[in-house]
Amino acid sequence: MISDERPVANRAPQDLAARVLAGEMRAAARAMRLVDDRTSGYLDLLKVLYPHTGRAWIVGVTGTPGAGKSTLTDRLIEHERKRGRRVGVVAVDPTSPFTGGAILGDRIRMQRHFLDPQVFIRSLATRGHLGGLSRSAGDVIRVLDAYGCETIFVETVGVGQDELEVTRLAHTTIVVMAPGMGDDIQAIKAGILEVADVFAVNKADRDGADSTVRDLEQMVAQTRETAVAAASASSHSAGHAHRYAREERAAGGPWEPPVVKTIAVKNDNIGALFAACDAHRTYLETTQDGARKREERAREELATIFRDTLLTEAALRVGEQQEAAVARLLRREDDPYTVSEALVRVLLGGGSA
Amino acid sequence: MISDERPVANRAPQDLAARVLAGEMRAAARAMRLVDDRTSGYLDLLKVLYPHTGRAWIVGVTGTPGAGKSTLTDRLIEHERKRGRRVGVVAVDPTSPFTGGAILGDRIRMQRHFLDPQVFIRSLATRGHLGGLSRSAGDVIRVLDAYGCETIFVETVGVGQDELEVTRLAHTTIVVMAPGMGDDIQAIKAGILEVADVFAVNKADRDGADSTVRDLEQMVAQTRETAVAAASASSHSAGHAHRYAREERAAGGPWEPPVVKTIAVKNDNIGALFAACDAHRTYLETTQDGARKREERAREELATIFRDTLLTEAALRVGEQQEAAVARLLRREDDPYTVSEALVRVLLGGGSA
Repeated sequence: MISDERPVANRAPQDLAARVLAGEMRAAARAMRLVDDRTSGYLDLLKVLYPHTGRAWIVGVTGTPGAGKSTLTDRLIEHERKRGRRVGVVAVDPTSPFTGGAILGDRIRMQRHFLDPQVFIRSLATRGHLGGLSRSAGDVIRVLDAYGCETIFVETVGVGQDELEVTRLAHTTIVVMAPGMGDDIQAIKAGILEVADVFAVNKADRDGADSTVRDLEQMVAQTRETAVAAASASSHSAGHAHRYAREERAAGGPWEPPVVKTIAVKNDNIGALFAACDAHRTYLETTQDGARKREERAREELATIFRDTLLTEAALRVGEQQEAAVARLLRREDDPYTVSEALVRVLLGGGSA
Repeated sequence: MISDERPVANRAPQDLAARVLAGEMRAAARAMRLVDDRTSGYLDLLKVLYPHTGRAWIVGVTGTPGAGKSTLTDRLIEHERKRGRRVGVVAVDPTSPFTGGAILGDRIRMQRHFLDPQVFIRSLATRGHLGGLSRSAGDVIRVLDAYGCETIFVETVGVGQDELEVTRLAHTTIVVMAPGMGDDIQAIKAGILEVADVFAVNKADRDGADSTVRDLEQMVAQTRETAVAAASASSHSAGHAHRYAREERAAGGPWEPPVVKTIAVKNDNIGALFAACDAHRTYLETTQDGARKREERAREELATIFRDTLLTEAALRVGEQQEAAVARLLRREDDPYTVSEALVRVLLGGGSA
């Protein structure tokens, strides 16, 4: 019996992995803690679990603050539980040392599911360094996947770069909006259009719901026209776009995010929202676009882990030299471009840059 | 005479740098384009300019969409021009291939300054890769600084991770809010509290302005109490916090972000906002906290450039191997952790991780 406090060593990752794969809830909890804290041995654990991943359907839930994401996620969990599925939830909280836990309190709405052994909820705080969050979230998702969660929700707050990175981990991303955003749709649409597979206009009994739906549908239509124009423009020079367009037609055209009105607090239209998500899943599994997206996810997954591994190792090897250079920079005796090139040369050898 | 289209070569970066330092506007425009596009020779240009940077005051302007950041920035530019200062503006736009330019249109409010040769406005779109934006923004700021801009505004849309990274480039960051955000302050406060040096509650003639001011002031007070509690708790074990607290007292206590009501469209209270910013500048220049912040900025600057240099070089050296691994990952023949370790070993040699 391994103590919960001691770092995993020797055969321990294999043993823990076997218990996770056997569906032991406490083992899964422990594995996620190890992975999130990056306790020694966590990489071996992930390597053993990885071949058993890839079965879960990962659904991202993001959108503007106050749109009711937590309540909606709660309803989606309920929906999946009624289908008999084991559910995982990764709740990403932009907490800080100053305000730790402020937003987590909001998640109280999901708490009734804490008692359900078939629902596994894990909160993740944003990391200090760039891209660290999506690495950690990816690792936790892989544990949930190996543990046998059939549907995994990834809920993020806000539409910042970090959250957008996290939604790339999802197969299907729901973007939740509330009516009455007005100009704000204009301001945030750049980010959300790229990630939305399904739009939920929640709190749909409020004034302005129809106009928000119309705005979103217009955005989707505009994107379609822009894409068609771009494809036809570049098909003259290359032919790639032309072939692409042909493939798309063969596959029934590209996916266009449907807009679904919901009232999460009243459990209203959640079935329709899920039907839209299911349709997107089918689309991904049966079309060339889906194959492309799977490939893109694998590429992202590797890039995130590689970047993190490289920067961690670089910090170990030249962190002290980097720190020593700061004083020289403050005295303007050196410039950060020359210092960076020199550090990269120390690390990689040869004539870099 | 160097053609505008040809990449810089040989002595060209030095020549261009000399013209930038002499205050030639067209040279500065060209230098920024080179730096933003990373045209060959841009690094040499930055190396020559760097020793001439460090004189500008960099003011970040961020906040929620619809709070009136662009109008406020316009007023701040006006204010600085009346003080006879040369002004630079870096406007960060989260544009995307789909919606390119949507937000830029909003910047029309600043356009009257386009005709002023002492105001230099440069828009930057968000980059594809993580951290790329803050690298580019930093490089452009350094060109504006060397060119002789005395105050440089960095305006960002939204409070995502990417924008937060960009505000780290600033000496003084103004966070702009509008009244009537309600619960949203709760949701976004985690991010903004860490970056705000001054709060502007804009559109202060609207309902709810006083309550927004009160909410923000309460947040600031709460942070102070948390910090004091944390310092006194850890001073028992270490003593660092105790010494820190002593230093803070000697320096007149830590900075607490003031909250200033403004009505940018009516040019109301802009002077008071600027006075708060000036006070923060004085604080930075005359206290130990300021010295710490300067050191932290130099550290961040180096870390950003080093990370970017390393990842760019790594992509050149193992990008093809990384791409080749994606197919194996899709077939589950390999796991991304093992692949990443192997790639890092190829790059760095020795027993990594």
